Amino acid sequence: MSNKGFTVWMTGLPSSGKSTLAGLLAAELQGRGLPVVNLDGDEVRMRLSKGLGFSKEDRDENIRRISYVARVASDMGGVAITSAISPYREIRDEARAEIAQFVEVFVSCPVEVCIQRDVKGLYKKALAGEIKGFTGIDDPYEEPLNPELVVHTDLESEQESIDNILGTLDRLGLLPKNETNSRATGASAVSDDEREQALTKLRGLGYVE
Amino acid sequence: MSNKGFTVWMTGLPSSGKSTLAGLLAAELQGRGLPVVNLDGDEVRMRLSKGLGFSKEDRDENIRRISYVARVASDMGGVAITSAISPYREIRDEARAEIAQFVEVFVSCPVEVCIQRDVKGLYKKALAGEIKGFTGIDDPYEEPLNPELVVHTDLESEQESIDNILGTLDRLGLLPKNETNSRATGASAVSDDEREQALTKLRGLGYVE
Repeated sequence: MSNKGFTVWMTGLPSSGKSTLAGLLAAELQGRGLPVVNLDGDEVRMRLSKGLGFSKEDRDENIRRISYVARVASDMGGVAITSAISPYREIRDEARAEIAQFVEVFVSCPVEVCIQRDVKGLYKKALAGEIKGFTGIDDPYEEPLNPELVVHTDLESEQESIDNILGTLDRLGLLPKNETNSRATGASAVSDDEREQALTKLRGLGYVE
Repeated sequence: MSNKGFTVWMTGLPSSGKSTLAGLLAAELQGRGLPVVNLDGDEVRMRLSKGLGFSKEDRDENIRRISYVARVASDMGGVAITSAISPYREIRDEARAEIAQFVEVFVSCPVEVCIQRDVKGLYKKALAGEIKGFTGIDDPYEEPLNPELVVHTDLESEQESIDNILGTLDRLGLLPKNETNSRATGASAVSDDEREQALTKLRGLGYVE
């Protein structure tokens, strides 16, 4: 590997697609031989933040803990992928300041589409007033002003978003050199044989049929 | 590096010498080019465990969080060094079960000697009854039954303890091959020149005079 650890910090509304992309990206990077930790919001809450609630103060504290673990993982030469909503710009910028190689990916999706998806059924409860302070409904989501990448999950396929993330990582020099050709740098650099090998690999991972 | 991450889990009474050895070991391993995170008890409390107290339940939770971060760091190929008292055998064994390469170092020192050192002045307060539930005074320290190594900080110099830890890591195959000769494998494998170079390096690090 390149020996540079880094953090891919996904941020976006509930149901925007962060966790899905985080899981696919983790599998893709692991498949390339990188050490990866997927700091999934739920696991982190269980392992690091028992007792914290959902007030702004507690959510900020939760994000700071994620940031700490992501920093440690990156410093060790690994790849940390985070997928907490992380709605507040100030705390995200704290994470950016703490982590040497920080790649902020804004997972953009109109709130109307997120409400339709409502993966965990929480928008419904928030709209019914059963949950207070829900991001996107009665609590703000502050969009990143200058993220390394914006993916549009209402307009792109999951694979297109993943390809865009890989392209960004490659452009930033964060992917191992001998592995990047097959997908991240476009068709012109890839022979038919290489493409076929890559597709075979992707089929094995369940990404393409 | 060997590409195997691992965790060195120091455990022992307050003032037994855990933090000192952790700092020296971290510097030594970093000097050998390994990515190292020193999960110092105070830093971890600040970054991961704000709001937790010193009840058995809260201390257990604190140790579980340290264990989680150590696991992540080790999984990324790094070296995590922990130096929390971690007085309870059960929670240490949970950490052992969670972390693939787990090296438990029992930092042994008679409590009378620890009381004399009393680095933070806490034994004095505990003996005066101002602190309740203090490990070694009115709360138990459960010695490891089967640690990878015991160091005796009342009998050995700091450098002897560090050498013993390095020897153990080397025996377990956890140190990079081309770097271990100079210190960890005993005099017979080391030429006079090599020893002089190593001493020069150690002087530079402030370990020997």
